[in-house]
Amino acid sequence: MAERPRTYLQRDTRRMKLLELGLRLFATRSYDDVSIDDVAREAGMSKGLLYHYFGGKRAFYTEVVRYAVDNLLERLVIDPTLSGPENARRGLLAWFEFVGQQGDAYLAIMHGSLGASDETVGPIIEDARRVLVDRILEGLEVEVPPPSIRIAVRSWIGAVETAALDWASHRDQEPPAIVDMLMAGLFAQLLVASHHAPGVRLKFDLAAGMRMLGPLLAART
Amino acid sequence: MAERPRTYLQRDTRRMKLLELGLRLFATRSYDDVSIDDVAREAGMSKGLLYHYFGGKRAFYTEVVRYAVDNLLERLVIDPTLSGPENARRGLLAWFEFVGQQGDAYLAIMHGSLGASDETVGPIIEDARRVLVDRILEGLEVEVPPPSIRIAVRSWIGAVETAALDWASHRDQEPPAIVDMLMAGLFAQLLVASHHAPGVRLKFDLAAGMRMLGPLLAART
Repeated sequence: MAERPRTYLQRDTRRMKLLELGLRLFATRSYDDVSIDDVAREAGMSKGLLYHYFGGKRAFYTEVVRYAVDNLLERLVIDPTLSGPENARRGLLAWFEFVGQQGDAYLAIMHGSLGASDETVGPIIEDARRVLVDRILEGLEVEVPPPSIRIAVRSWIGAVETAALDWASHRDQEPPAIVDMLMAGLFAQLLVASHHAPGVRLKFDLAAGMRMLGPLLAART
Repeated sequence: MAERPRTYLQRDTRRMKLLELGLRLFATRSYDDVSIDDVAREAGMSKGLLYHYFGGKRAFYTEVVRYAVDNLLERLVIDPTLSGPENARRGLLAWFEFVGQQGDAYLAIMHGSLGASDETVGPIIEDARRVLVDRILEGLEVEVPPPSIRIAVRSWIGAVETAALDWASHRDQEPPAIVDMLMAGLFAQLLVASHHAPGVRLKFDLAAGMRMLGPLLAART
């Protein structure tokens, strides 16, 4: 009986190591180019045990994607002691840090042969987007978002994803500069969206956000 | 000999009608649920002739996607007599008009079983994004974009795509309001991006763009 917790722990550790290995393999090779034999060989375990853990290659891949997505979402947790703009900036920097560390995996998951429109991978990514939108709406203290706010937040997540994909491929700009750009997009989109939702009071300090853009506005306009 | 042009025309017309039919079928049913038999029956032609035109179901689907994407791109042509902001607004309204008419097809192509990450469909969508980015950069008169401008434009296209997908599903806001919101995002992103590309002079009138946002800024901040 005393063995059980340790055994579970070992099992979890081993499982996590396999997911890390999967992330490395699928990041640099396409889904079709990675066989369960490759995974078993690199992990130094039998194919049978691997099947025991994950059931098969597709299920293994799905777990690897879920592991990577959860890893990103953990970094994007809202800190209630910070303001909305501070949380947004912190989250964006964490997102780009993740892509800096896991850029190949990020590209493979979003653009790979089993990517965002695959029937098992797609819903994992779609769920993650929903989690992010909900966190932002929660931060804005909008429980039932009016359409304009929902579209502003969702489309902004689309902008962030695309910027992160571009950066994962090119890495030719410093993340803080990209984060500034995306923050400006968020402020501007929320500003106009809140204009179309007159009854709703966002907790996000748009005025403070626009003041952050002030020096740029003054310099350019 | 005199017959040839007419024959070609008939062939083109028939081909286009088949693509329109394909768009309708794939818009409401998944790729797997549409058979070549269905297409042939609905078109009132033999399966053999359909194979003659398109080679097979996958090739037919690919042509349908290309047809839809070309149709969208045709609506988004830059009018050189208009200003950058006018072109952006006009293009966005045309995009939402397209989604208004072809919403199911738009959702199916972007999110369907053979969607944006499929090996044949994905590149068609990726090419279309590149065309749009190039058109915007051309409008901005930036031939070789510095990273900040490229990322701002690309990520903005991501925001537009996501907004269009949201609207295709919900249709609970008027397109002009969404267009306002996206225009604000574009201005703000370009403003910050141009700050990070000091040597580059965009043709886009950022000052005029921000003045369009002025009343909203005054009302809210």
